[in-house]
Amino acid sequence: MKILEERILREGKVLPGNVLKVGSFINHMIDPTLTDKMGEAFFERFKNEGVTKILTVEASGIAIAYAAARYFGCPMVFAKKTQTSNVNSNVYSAPVKSFTHGKTYNVMVSTDYITHEDTVLCVDDFLAVGNALIGLFSIVEQAGAKLAGAGIAIEKGFQGGGDKLRDKGYRIESLAIIDSMEDCKIVFRH
Amino acid sequence: MKILEERILREGKVLPGNVLKVGSFINHMIDPTLTDKMGEAFFERFKNEGVTKILTVEASGIAIAYAAARYFGCPMVFAKKTQTSNVNSNVYSAPVKSFTHGKTYNVMVSTDYITHEDTVLCVDDFLAVGNALIGLFSIVEQAGAKLAGAGIAIEKGFQGGGDKLRDKGYRIESLAIIDSMEDCKIVFRH
Repeated sequence: MKILEERILREGKVLPGNVLKVGSFINHMIDPTLTDKMGEAFFERFKNEGVTKILTVEASGIAIAYAAARYFGCPMVFAKKTQTSNVNSNVYSAPVKSFTHGKTYNVMVSTDYITHEDTVLCVDDFLAVGNALIGLFSIVEQAGAKLAGAGIAIEKGFQGGGDKLRDKGYRIESLAIIDSMEDCKIVFRH
Repeated sequence: MKILEERILREGKVLPGNVLKVGSFINHMIDPTLTDKMGEAFFERFKNEGVTKILTVEASGIAIAYAAARYFGCPMVFAKKTQTSNVNSNVYSAPVKSFTHGKTYNVMVSTDYITHEDTVLCVDDFLAVGNALIGLFSIVEQAGAKLAGAGIAIEKGFQGGGDKLRDKGYRIESLAIIDSMEDCKIVFRH
């Protein structure tokens, strides 16, 4: 997605530890025009899949997932992050190891909001090693729902998570895939 | 806002401790049609204030704040919650005591994203005793920005936070104000 790539080049900052800072338009401040276009792009790619729910994880996935939900005309569910493993029978939960912070947290969704009748598109702002997405996929599976795939804003391709999931047969659509950030130079996959 | 009140009556659950559960359309699952209408309602009420930024706090404020930002055609900033008091000179921060959980956390916004040139509308899903909103107002003040006021989805009027802020001269616009939840019966202010 050209306008996203241009924005990453203009405003993204590469920090030590393979961290890409995009606080000015995704992580902290949100540009509604760009976010709307990302939502539309996910709709274009998944519009024939019969999607009934968009699933993301708080917090920075919410705006993009909401933008997608507007185009699909379906509800958006955001998984909550909790530090304790929730053994409540009214929730689906899965452990996620954070790449950025090193800690493990749980993602949790009430059983009320995803059921076996749903077809779910997972949406997130970032895909690196893929842990958050694997957690969301696990929740979809626990619910007995159909998984349409995942729509990602920025995939850090060089960390391998996206390609591993594609090799397993999942449909992963990323709007910008970064294949290298060496020496602070961002190289996109085309 | 009639459609919001109707939705609260239909799907909201009153829990012990004056907690109103609205997970099916605000806190956990988001209905994009309703959320869009809330964003439009905030725009109608504040469109003549020269708003340049929408400010909310993660996580459940994000979708509503984004919906508002689309109508205002301006960026949306979400304050981050941190457990440690951040003494970083590149952030504005304020302590917030959570009514629901009893804990105190900090809300934090990078100094890059709100400046003295901004006119800020704060948006949040709930207003009870007002602590989160007071934290956001403090951030606006630290930035030297102009405060247009606050747009709230659901105000628990019987907890008094909204009226206290109105008495101090702040403009607080709530789309649904609940004046009582006694015996699980929700009574709106009109």
